[in-house]
Amino acid sequence: MPIATPLTELLGIRHPILSAPMDTIAGSRLTRAVSEAGGFGILGGGYGDRGRLETETAELKGFAPFGIGFITWSLAKQPELLDIALDARPQAIMLSFGDPAPFAPRIRASGARLICQVQSEEMARQALDAGAAILIAQGTEAGGHGASRTTVDIVPAIVDLAAERVPVVAAGGIADGRGLAAMMMLGASGVLIGTRFYASVEANGAQEAKERIRMANSNDTVRGVVADWSRSLFWPAPFTARTLVNDHIRRWTGREIELMQRAAEVGVEYAAAKAAGNFEVAAVFAGEAVGLIHDIPPAAEIVERIATEAEQLLTGRRNSVRGVLPSPLVGEGGA
Amino acid sequence: MPIATPLTELLGIRHPILSAPMDTIAGSRLTRAVSEAGGFGILGGGYGDRGRLETETAELKGFAPFGIGFITWSLAKQPELLDIALDARPQAIMLSFGDPAPFAPRIRASGARLICQVQSEEMARQALDAGAAILIAQGTEAGGHGASRTTVDIVPAIVDLAAERVPVVAAGGIADGRGLAAMMMLGASGVLIGTRFYASVEANGAQEAKERIRMANSNDTVRGVVADWSRSLFWPAPFTARTLVNDHIRRWTGREIELMQRAAEVGVEYAAAKAAGNFEVAAVFAGEAVGLIHDIPPAAEIVERIATEAEQLLTGRRNSVRGVLPSPLVGEGGA
Repeated sequence: MPIATPLTELLGIRHPILSAPMDTIAGSRLTRAVSEAGGFGILGGGYGDRGRLETETAELKGFAPFGIGFITWSLAKQPELLDIALDARPQAIMLSFGDPAPFAPRIRASGARLICQVQSEEMARQALDAGAAILIAQGTEAGGHGASRTTVDIVPAIVDLAAERVPVVAAGGIADGRGLAAMMMLGASGVLIGTRFYASVEANGAQEAKERIRMANSNDTVRGVVADWSRSLFWPAPFTARTLVNDHIRRWTGREIELMQRAAEVGVEYAAAKAAGNFEVAAVFAGEAVGLIHDIPPAAEIVERIATEAEQLLTGRRNSVRGVLPSPLVGEGGA
Repeated sequence: MPIATPLTELLGIRHPILSAPMDTIAGSRLTRAVSEAGGFGILGGGYGDRGRLETETAELKGFAPFGIGFITWSLAKQPELLDIALDARPQAIMLSFGDPAPFAPRIRASGARLICQVQSEEMARQALDAGAAILIAQGTEAGGHGASRTTVDIVPAIVDLAAERVPVVAAGGIADGRGLAAMMMLGASGVLIGTRFYASVEANGAQEAKERIRMANSNDTVRGVVADWSRSLFWPAPFTARTLVNDHIRRWTGREIELMQRAAEVGVEYAAAKAAGNFEVAAVFAGEAVGLIHDIPPAAEIVERIATEAEQLLTGRRNSVRGVLPSPLVGEGGA
C-alpha cells in the first residue's frame, strides 16, 4: 500500500523518497540502490570533476529511474558537464544553489525533468520561471550546503507559493517515516534525504565518517563556513554548510577572518587530514537528523523502513510514538 | 470527530491545542477564549508583577480548564507567586526556562499537572525527574524565548526520550492545522501555539503589534538578545528571544557588547518607545509562524480552524495542499 503523491506519479516511482546528490558521497552505487528499492536515486555531480562524472554516469547508462544533481554555481563554470549528464539519459536533473535559467532549456529539451532545490520564496519563483517540474524546499537542518530557514517554516511557505503547479519535496532533518509523514501533512509530496543515506552501505563515504554519523547527536552539527574556507571553497551567500562538529570546526568557528587570511596554510593541513581520513580535521557533512541515525544498513532497507513507517502513520495503523499500536488516531469513527 | 490523544485525555480537552503563556499578552481573556473553544488556555505569569497576577487569576477562579505558565528563573526570585497561581485552582502549571524541581512538589500537591517546556534532552530528563506530567518540546522557530534546536529536530528527540511515559507537545513554528497534523506524525500529542494567538482579538497586545504580526513574513523575525538587553532583562544561557525585526533590532544586532555597555541609556529610550507604542523600537515578540498568519480573528476561530484542518488531513479527507480534495493520500485501498 505505497504512498501515492503527485511526485511518485510524475517520476514513476513507488515511494516518495529521493536521495540527495551529496557531492561524491552519492555515487552510482547509492543512486542505483535507492531507485531499485522504489525511491529515486540522484547522483552527486560534485564540483566539476569531469572524469569522475563520466565514470559514474557510465555506470548508470540504461538504468532507470535516476537523477543527477549539480551545484548550479559550480556547473556554471563548466556548463559542458551538463551534456555528459544528459548523455546518460537521467529522468531528472536537480539544480541547487544558483540560477537554473541558463541550464533549463537544455534539460527540458532532453526530456529530463528539472528539479530545483530552493531555500526561499524568491528562489522558488526563479525556479518556477525556469520551468522547474519539482521544487525541493530545503530547511537549515539539512546536512551540507543550505541556508537559514527551518524545515517547518520553509516547507509550507513553498507549498503555498507553488499552489499545486508543481510537487514540493521537503528536505532537511528528515531520516525516518515520521519525518516523511510529517512533511506530507505540511503539504509536501515527498522528501529528499541526505545524511540518512550517507550512513548506508552503498554510500561512497569513508567508514569512519559513517560511524561518526551513526554515533552523533543532533547537537553535534553546526552550520558555517569553516569546512568550505579550509579547502578554499568560497560559496556565495546565503549558503553555508552543516557538518559534524570536530576539533577543526571548534578551533576556527568565530575566527573566520583569520581563517580566510590563512586559507592557503590551513588548506594544506586540511587536505592532508582528508587524505589521511582524520575526521577531527576533515569535515563530515551531515545534518541534524544524525540524532535519528543509529545504524549503517543497506540503502534499500532505509527506503523500506521510511516508506513502511510513513504508510503506517498516514493510515492510522500506527501511532508516532514508537512501538505502540494505539486506539485510532482520530476518535469516533475516524481512519 | 475531534483528535484524541494522550494529551486531550490527560487534560480533558476537546482539541490538542494549548495557548502559550506569553508574558502579559496571554491574559485571562485569551486563556478563557482558548479553553472555551475546546483547547487549553494558559495564562502568562509574566515577570513577577504580583498585582497583575492577582487580578488575572481572580478572573479565572472557578473557570476550567486552564493553566498558568511561569518563567522558572523569574519565579525563583518570587516563589510566593506560585501560591497565588495555585489558589486559582488551575488544572496545570507550566514551567519554562529553568529547573522545575524546587516548585514541583507544591504543584503536584495541589493536584495541578506539571507541564515543563524543554529545549534539550537534558532539560527533558530534569523535567521528568521533577515529575512533569507533560513535556513541551520547543523549537527555535518559536516566538519569544527559546533556544537553538529546530522543531523538526527537537520534537522526535523528546518523543523518543519520553518513550510514552508522558505526552509530548510540540511548540515552535506552528500556526495552522498542517502544523498540528505534522507534529502528530512526529509523535507529538498536541501543540503549544503562541504567535497565532497573539494575533487574535482576545490577546492583550497592542493592535499595532497584532497588525505587524499579520503583515510579517517568516523572514522578518530574528532570535537574539537585543530586545531583552534593551530593557535590562538578562536571560540565562541558552535562552534568547525571537522578535520581529525592526529599526532597533537592526541597529543593535552585532553590537551587543556596546548595547550592554550602554544598557541604562538605551533602556530609557526603549521604555519610552514601548509606552508610546513605537514598534520600530519596542519589540514585538513573535515566531517564524508569522508567515502563516494573515488575519486577527477571535481565538475560538483559530482553535476551530486548526483542529478542523488537522482532522481533515489526518483522516485523509483533505490533502495538505490547500483547497484540493484529491485522490486518497494512500493508494490501493488506503484511508
